[in-house]
Amino acid sequence: MQWVYTFGGGSAEGRADMRDLLGGKGANLAEMAALGLPVPPGFTITTEVCAHFYDNEHTYPDSLDGELTKALDHIGSLTGKRFGDTANPLLVSVRSGARASMPGMMDTVLNLGLNDETVETLAAQSGDARFAYDSYRRFIQMYADVVLDVDHHDFEDILEDIKSANGFEDDTELSADHLKDVIVRYKELVEDETDEVFPQDPTTQLKGAIGAVFRSWMTPRAVTYRRLHAIPEDWGTAVNVQSMVFGNTGETSATGVAFTRNPSTGENALYGEFLINAQGEDVVAGIRTPQSLTEDARLASGSDKASLEAAMPEAFSQFREICHTLEAHYRDMQDLEFTIEDGRLWMLQTRAGKRTTKAALKIAVEMAEAGMITKDEAVSRIDPAALDQLLHPTIDPNAKRDVVATGLPASPGAASGAIVFTSEAAEEAKAREEDVILVRVETSPEDIHGMHAARGILTTRGGMTSHAAVVARGMGTPCVSGAGALQVDYAAGTLIAEGRAFKAGDIITLDGSTGEVLAGAVPMLQPELTGEFARLMEWAEGVGGMAVRANAETPHDAQTARNYGAEGIGLCRTEHMFFDADRIMAVRQMILAEEPEGRRKALDKLLPVQRADFEELFEIMAGQPVTIRLLDPPLHEFLPHSAEDIAEVAASLGVDADILRLRVGALSEFNPMLGHRGCRLAISYPEIPEMQARAIFEAAIAASKTAGQPVEPEIMVPLVATKAELDLIAGIVHSTADEVMKETGQTITYTVGTMIELPRAALMAGEIAETAAFFSFGTNDLTQTTYGISRDDAASFLGTYVQRELFIDDPFVTLDPDGVGELVKIASERGRTARPDIKLGICGEHGGDPRSIAFCETIGLDYVSCSPFRVPIARLAAAQAAMAADADTA
Amino acid sequence: MQWVYTFGGGSAEGRADMRDLLGGKGANLAEMAALGLPVPPGFTITTEVCAHFYDNEHTYPDSLDGELTKALDHIGSLTGKRFGDTANPLLVSVRSGARASMPGMMDTVLNLGLNDETVETLAAQSGDARFAYDSYRRFIQMYADVVLDVDHHDFEDILEDIKSANGFEDDTELSADHLKDVIVRYKELVEDETDEVFPQDPTTQLKGAIGAVFRSWMTPRAVTYRRLHAIPEDWGTAVNVQSMVFGNTGETSATGVAFTRNPSTGENALYGEFLINAQGEDVVAGIRTPQSLTEDARLASGSDKASLEAAMPEAFSQFREICHTLEAHYRDMQDLEFTIEDGRLWMLQTRAGKRTTKAALKIAVEMAEAGMITKDEAVSRIDPAALDQLLHPTIDPNAKRDVVATGLPASPGAASGAIVFTSEAAEEAKAREEDVILVRVETSPEDIHGMHAARGILTTRGGMTSHAAVVARGMGTPCVSGAGALQVDYAAGTLIAEGRAFKAGDIITLDGSTGEVLAGAVPMLQPELTGEFARLMEWAEGVGGMAVRANAETPHDAQTARNYGAEGIGLCRTEHMFFDADRIMAVRQMILAEEPEGRRKALDKLLPVQRADFEELFEIMAGQPVTIRLLDPPLHEFLPHSAEDIAEVAASLGVDADILRLRVGALSEFNPMLGHRGCRLAISYPEIPEMQARAIFEAAIAASKTAGQPVEPEIMVPLVATKAELDLIAGIVHSTADEVMKETGQTITYTVGTMIELPRAALMAGEIAETAAFFSFGTNDLTQTTYGISRDDAASFLGTYVQRELFIDDPFVTLDPDGVGELVKIASERGRTARPDIKLGICGEHGGDPRSIAFCETIGLDYVSCSPFRVPIARLAAAQAAMAADADTA
Repeated sequence: MQWVYTFGGGSAEGRADMRDLLGGKGANLAEMAALGLPVPPGFTITTEVCAHFYDNEHTYPDSLDGELTKALDHIGSLTGKRFGDTANPLLVSVRSGARASMPGMMDTVLNLGLNDETVETLAAQSGDARFAYDSYRRFIQMYADVVLDVDHHDFEDILEDIKSANGFEDDTELSADHLKDVIVRYKELVEDETDEVFPQDPTTQLKGAIGAVFRSWMTPRAVTYRRLHAIPEDWGTAVNVQSMVFGNTGETSATGVAFTRNPSTGENALYGEFLINAQGEDVVAGIRTPQSLTEDARLASGSDKASLEAAMPEAFSQFREICHTLEAHYRDMQDLEFTIEDGRLWMLQTRAGKRTTKAALKIAVEMAEAGMITKDEAVSRIDPAALDQLLHPTIDPNAKRDVVATGLPASPGAASGAIVFTSEAAEEAKAREEDVILVRVETSPEDIHGMHAARGILTTRGGMTSHAAVVARGMGTPCVSGAGALQVDYAAGTLIAEGRAFKAGDIITLDGSTGEVLAGAVPMLQPELTGEFARLMEWAEGVGGMAVRANAETPHDAQTARNYGAEGIGLCRTEHMFFDADRIMAVRQMILAEEPEGRRKALDKLLPVQRADFEELFEIMAGQPVTIRLLDPPLHEFLPHSAEDIAEVAASLGVDADILRLRVGALSEFNPMLGHRGCRLAISYPEIPEMQARAIFEAAIAASKTAGQPVEPEIMVPLVATKAELDLIAGIVHSTADEVMKETGQTITYTVGTMIELPRAALMAGEIAETAAFFSFGTNDLTQTTYGISRDDAASFLGTYVQRELFIDDPFVTLDPDGVGELVKIASERGRTARPDIKLGICGEHGGDPRSIAFCETIGLDYVSCSPFRVPIARLAAAQAAMAADADTA
Repeated sequence: MQWVYTFGGGSAEGRADMRDLLGGKGANLAEMAALGLPVPPGFTITTEVCAHFYDNEHTYPDSLDGELTKALDHIGSLTGKRFGDTANPLLVSVRSGARASMPGMMDTVLNLGLNDETVETLAAQSGDARFAYDSYRRFIQMYADVVLDVDHHDFEDILEDIKSANGFEDDTELSADHLKDVIVRYKELVEDETDEVFPQDPTTQLKGAIGAVFRSWMTPRAVTYRRLHAIPEDWGTAVNVQSMVFGNTGETSATGVAFTRNPSTGENALYGEFLINAQGEDVVAGIRTPQSLTEDARLASGSDKASLEAAMPEAFSQFREICHTLEAHYRDMQDLEFTIEDGRLWMLQTRAGKRTTKAALKIAVEMAEAGMITKDEAVSRIDPAALDQLLHPTIDPNAKRDVVATGLPASPGAASGAIVFTSEAAEEAKAREEDVILVRVETSPEDIHGMHAARGILTTRGGMTSHAAVVARGMGTPCVSGAGALQVDYAAGTLIAEGRAFKAGDIITLDGSTGEVLAGAVPMLQPELTGEFARLMEWAEGVGGMAVRANAETPHDAQTARNYGAEGIGLCRTEHMFFDADRIMAVRQMILAEEPEGRRKALDKLLPVQRADFEELFEIMAGQPVTIRLLDPPLHEFLPHSAEDIAEVAASLGVDADILRLRVGALSEFNPMLGHRGCRLAISYPEIPEMQARAIFEAAIAASKTAGQPVEPEIMVPLVATKAELDLIAGIVHSTADEVMKETGQTITYTVGTMIELPRAALMAGEIAETAAFFSFGTNDLTQTTYGISRDDAASFLGTYVQRELFIDDPFVTLDPDGVGELVKIASERGRTARPDIKLGICGEHGGDPRSIAFCETIGLDYVSCSPFRVPIARLAAAQAAMAADADTA
C-alpha cells in the first residue's frame, strides 16, 4: 500500500483519474505536474490514510512516517531546500482535498515550517525582514486557529491593539519590529489558551496540520453536508502538502485567480483577477481592488491599473498558454489559481469552473462546435433544472431594485404592470391591451380567467403549492405568493407595504425567481431561445429518449408548447375551459340542475364552446397526439361561495339565493380531494362525458379537414379505482363516437385510456389495461394518496419534515422512487403484461422534474408531459436519462 | 348422456348429491324415493338439457323425446295410469328446480294432462265431478298464465263474473255446472289472447310447460338475481315432472307444510300447518285458517280445529316417522311439503329449513350435543353476521309498534328513553340514572360524552357512516341516523314528526336494527348470552384460529370486550379520552398554545388523567395485551366551531375570541383526512407523544402492582408513511421509558409498533419493520387512501355505485381483497421477511366483518380487533376461517 504520492519537476506519481485516492485537488496537481506545467513540488497523503485514521482510533499506518520523510526529501531535491533545516528551510502549505469539495473542511495552512529560527533565515534569504515576520505571524494565526482551536478573533484583537497603540490604520504600516512584537504576543496567546508553547519543530507542525485535516472530515458541518448530499462517510479526505511559493515578495510577484472563459456569459475569453505583491487570500479578501488579467478586460472595466498582460507580459503569456493547454486537456472550462514569485509562474490549482446556466450553454455548444467535446457531451453538461432561468424574462441585473416586499418565488420570471385587484379588472385591462399584475389575498378557481389575463400574480397568503402558485407555474406566468408583509384592502383598493401605499393602476414589478416585489417598472432581459439554446435542444432531440408532451388547454399554452418542441399534449384539463365568464353561468346551471333534463339543457349550451376549444387545440397541434381528460374536479369548485357572489349568481340564474346556498352547501365536502370528483362525476352525471365526448369527436372531424391531418384524440378518464368504472365510461364514449360517426358519415380514430392516480388503480392495472389503451400517471394525486398527504394542507407540517430531514426531497417535487415509484412500476409492468402495446406516460408535475424524468426512463415510460414552460427542461432531462440508460446497458 | 332421471316406487336414478345435475328439488325427491319414502313417482329433466337448450337456439337434445316417453311409462307402470290415455289418464305436476332456489323462475303447473276428455274420466273415477272440473279450470288458468303468458287477472275476472251473476261469495259455492261454464269461458279467453285453442294434447301441454321452465331461467328478475348473487349463467335449471296426488278429494285428503323443528325458536318439536280437502296453494293462500299438526301445538294456540295428529292419526304417525328419518338422514332441520290423498301420505319436498339465528343456534348446539353433528359442524352452521341480532336488546315481536318515522338502521339494538337535545342534558340525566335518547340533527366529536350517556342516538341527517353511526356502532349503542322526515327545533326543544310533536322528556323508542323510531316505551327482549350461545362460543374457541381483540378505550367498553371473550385490546384511541367535559379545556389550551412551553403546561394537566385512564384499562385487561394508539385526529376536531361555542371557550380560557377564531381557522384544512394528523402531530409537537408515553409507562407500573400481572403495553404510532417518522417517535417513546424507569427504579416491558394505514407504509413495510415490533392494519384509512375515497363524502356517489353494481361490496364494510388486500398482503410479507416474529393484526372496522376476517386468515394475521359488541361475531368468523383453511390444506 502506497500512502503518499509525490508530484513536481515535470512528473507525478498520480493522475487526474485518481480522484478517489488523491482527492480532486491532489489529482489535478499531479495531472498538471505530469503535463510538465510549473507546479510547486509536493505530495498528496491519500484518502486511504484518512480511512485508516478513523478505522484505527486516530492513528496512522506504520509506514506513513517513512513515506512522509521520503516525500519531503523529494520536494527538497527539487527545490534545493530541506524541511526543518535552519540554513535553507523548506516551507510548505497544507490543504485538505476530498473527492468533492465540501464545506466544513480545514482551511489552508500556509508557511508551515517557519519557527523562531527559520524565520530569520527567510528574512536573510529574501532580504525582506518584514516579509519574513509577516509570514511567520500569519502562520501562527492560521495554525493556531485551524490546528490548535484558538479563536482567530483573539489574534485579530492583538493586531488591532498594536496598530492603534501606534496610530496605524493599515497592516502595511506595521514594520518588521512591530511584527516581531505581534509574534511574541501571538505565541503568548497560544500558550495561555493551550497550555503548550507554539510548536517550533516543523515535523510536529506538519503532523499537527495533517491530523487537523483528517479531524475536519468529521466536523458537524461536514457530516451534515455529506448526509444531505448522500456522500459516503468512508470516502475520506486527502492531504496536499506543497512547497511554498510567495506572491508577496515584491513588485515582481503576484497572485491571482482565473477562468479560462467568462463564467457569467460563457464568452471564450480569459477572465480573472490578480494582485501584485500579495498572497492568495488577499485577492478574495477585497482589501485592495484586484486588477484585470488582460488588456481587453482592463479597457472594458475602465480601470487605470495595469493588467497582468501589460505588467508581466512574459508570465502572462506563459499563463495564457497554460490555460489553453488545460482547457484542451480537461475538455472543459477551468477555474485556476496561480502565483508569480519573483517573475516565475506557479500553478496552484485547476478544476472545472462553476458557471451560470447561460455560460454553461454557450461553453458547451461552442466546445462541441469546436470539436473539443461531442454533442452528446454538450447535452449531458447542462443541468436541466437550471434551464428554467433562461426561459423567462429576467430583471436586468444592472437595474436599480426598489424592493417593497419579499414573498415566495412561486413561479419564475419577471413582469411589470399596473395593479388590479379583481380578475374582472384584469380581463378588462387585457382587452385594452394593458399589462397588469393581479393582486389578491389568495386566488381560487374563479380567478383563472383573470390569472390568464395578467402578466404576473401576487398573493399575500399561500405557499409554493397554493392555488396561485400551481396555476401560475402551469401558465408560465411569474408569481410571488405569500407576501405576508403586504396588506390588501379590497374595499379601499389599496396595497399597503410598510407604510407605502399602492393603489389600483400603480405600476409594480414582480421577480418570480426571487420572490421580490418592486415598485415601478424595471428594465428586463428577454429570454434568448435561439442560438446556443436552440442548438442544444436540437442535439438533445437527436439523442432520442422519451417523448415530451405538454399539459395545456388554452390555444396560447398549446402554441407555447409547440414552440418549445412539445410532441403533443399529454394532459388537457377540460375543467379549465369552464371558468370563462361567458361559460361559468352554463356550468352553474348544469350543477344546479336537479334532474338530467336540466343538466342536459345546460350542457347543450356548453357543447358548441367545448367543440370550438377542441377544434382550435387540434388545429394548433396539427396531427400530434392530444390527450383530453374528462371533467375532474369536485363540482363545488365551480360554485360561488361568498354571500354576495351567491346572490349575484342566483339573480342571473333566476334561482332563489337560499336554494343556491343549500345546493352549494350540499356539494361541499369534508375531503374534496377524496370526494365526488373524477370519473365519479361522470358516473353520477353521464350526460357530462356524453357532451364532452361529442365535443371532442365533432371537433376532431372538423379539425382533420382544416388541418389536412388526421386527428386522433386520446380520451382520458380520471380517478379510476376499478375496471368497472372505466368500462362504464368507455361505453359512453364509444356509443357517442358511434352516434357521431353515424350522423356525419365520417370515421373517427380515437383511443380511451385512464389516469393512474390512485394506489388501487396502480395495483389493478392488469385488469384496467384490458379496457385502457393508455395509462397516464397522475403522480400529483398518486403521491397524495400514497402518502396520505393533502398538498393543500401540507404546509403546516412540511416545514418541520424538511427541517428534521424526514423527507430528503419534497415528494411533490421529485417523485418518491420507493413508494409512489413502486406503484408506477407495478402498474407499468401489469399494464404491459395485459396489453403489450399500451402507451405509458406521466402528466403530474413530476413530468417536468429532471430527477423524476430519470426515474421514468428507468421504468420505460413512452413520454412525459409537463407545463409548456418546462418542455425544454424535460426534453433535456429525457435526453440525459436516455444517455444514462445507454451507458448502463453498454 | 342421460337427460332424464326417474324416481319413485322405492328407488331412484338420482341422489341428493346430484344437486348440480338435478337441481335441489329433484335431487331431494330422488333421495327420498331412494330412502323408500312415499314420493309420487316422477322424473327430473337435468340442468344439462337447459344448457343444451340455450347453446342450441332453444332446441332439445335428439334423444330427449325418447327418454321422456320412457320416463312417463315408468310413472305409468308405478301408478297404473298412462299419460294421454283417456281411459286412465296420468296427470302430472311440472316444477322448476335449480341448484339454488331463485326468484323469477316459473311457478308450478298442476293437473297437467287434463283436457276436455280426461276431465270426464277424472270426474267418473273420482266420483266427484266438481273436483274434476275445478282441477281442469285451475290447470287452464295456471298453464295459460305461466306457459302462454295470458294475464291471470283476466281469469279471475271471469270467475268473479260468474260468481256475482249467481250471487255467490265463495268459490266453493260454484257447482260442477258453473265450473263447466268457467272452463268454456277460460278456453275462449285463451283463444282470444293467443289465437290458438287451448292445447288438448297432453304431450303438447308437457312440452309447453318444460319450455316455459327453461325460458324462465332468463327472465330479467332471474338474470338480475344471479348477477347480484354471483350465480353463473351456465348452471341452468332442471324440470321436475311428478304424477299428481290430490289433497282435495274429500275429508280423508289433506295437504300441509312442516318444519322438523321450530324455525323461530329452534325448539325440537314438529312445527307446521295443514288443511283438510285442499291443494298445496290453499295452505299459503290464507283463505282458510290452517290447522296445527300436533295436539300440543293445537292446545298452545287455543284452536278448536282438529290437529293432524287427532284427525288422521295413522298418516300423522307415518309423517312424524318420516320427519325423524329425514332429519337424521340430512343431519339438519328439514322444511317439508306433503299431501294426503284418500288417507295415503305422499312427500312432495324436503330441504334444509330456513331459521332465525336464535333457532339456528339452538338447533346446531342441540344436534351437536345429541351427536347428530360434530361441534365443528355446529360452529360452521351459524352465520357470524347474523349473530349481531342476538347481542342487543330487541323489541318484543309481539309488541305494538307506533312508528313515528323511519331512518337508517345505523347501529343495531333497541332502546327506550326520554328525549334530550343536548349532550349536556344527556350527561345530567345519566347522573340522575335516567334513560335518555339523544336527539340531534347530527353529532360531532364534542358529543361523545353525551353519546356515552345516552341509551340511544337519533339523528335527522347523515348516513350509515356518519359520525353518529360510526361512534354508536363502536359503543354498541342503538342508533337511527338520517331520519329526514323528523325535524329538530333546538330553540323550541321539539321534535316534529308529520304533525306529531315530541318535546324534551317525552319517551321514544329506537329500533336500531330496522331504523324505526317509535312513540312511547315498548317491551324489549334482552339478549341471551348464556346457554347455547356460550356453548357455541366455547366450541368456536376450541377450533383455534386468529385471536380476537377489541377496539376499546373506556372501562365500560373494555369490560364488555372481556365479557364477550376478547383476548386483549387491539386499538385504544387515546383521543376519545380527551373529549370529557373536564378535559377538553386542557386539550384546547394545548392546541391554542403557540409555544412548546404553553403546550407542555396544558399537557401536564392532562398527564394525570391519561395515566388514570390507562391504569384502569390495564387493570381491567389484567395482563392481556393492550395496544394504545398515540393521538391521531387533526387538532381542529377538538376546537369549538360555532360563534357561540368559540365565545364560551374563549371566555373560559381568558383568550380573545378573535384570536381563538383565527387559530381555529388556521387549524382547519381542505382535506383533514390527509392533513396534519397522526404521527405528523407528534412530529410537530413532540411534547404530546412524550406526555402520552409517560402516562402509559407510569400506569403500566402502577397497574402491574395492583393487578399482580405484568402489563406490557403496545404503543402504536398512527399514519406512518416513512421509517424516519416512526424512528423519530419511537426515539421519544424509548427515551421517555428510560426516564420513567430511572425515576421509578422499575423495569417496563413494552413494544413500539405502527398502524399500516397508508399505501406507502404498506409498500415500505420491510424498512418500517426494522423499527416496528408490530403492525396493525388500519384498513379504514387504508381503504380511503387506496381507493381515494373519503368515507365521509362517499354518500353522494356510493348509492349510484351500488345501484350500477360498480361495487359488488361496499369496500368500507368488506375488505377489498384485490386492491387493499394486496397491500395488506405485501406489507405482511415484507414485514415478516424483515422481522420474522412481527405481530400482525387488523383494527379497522373490517376486523368485525366475517368475510374480511376470512381474508385475514388467508394472509395469516395473528389477530383481528373490532368493536366490543362484534367480538362474538369475530370469534365465530375466525373459527370458521380457521376451519376453512384447514379444509383447504387437508
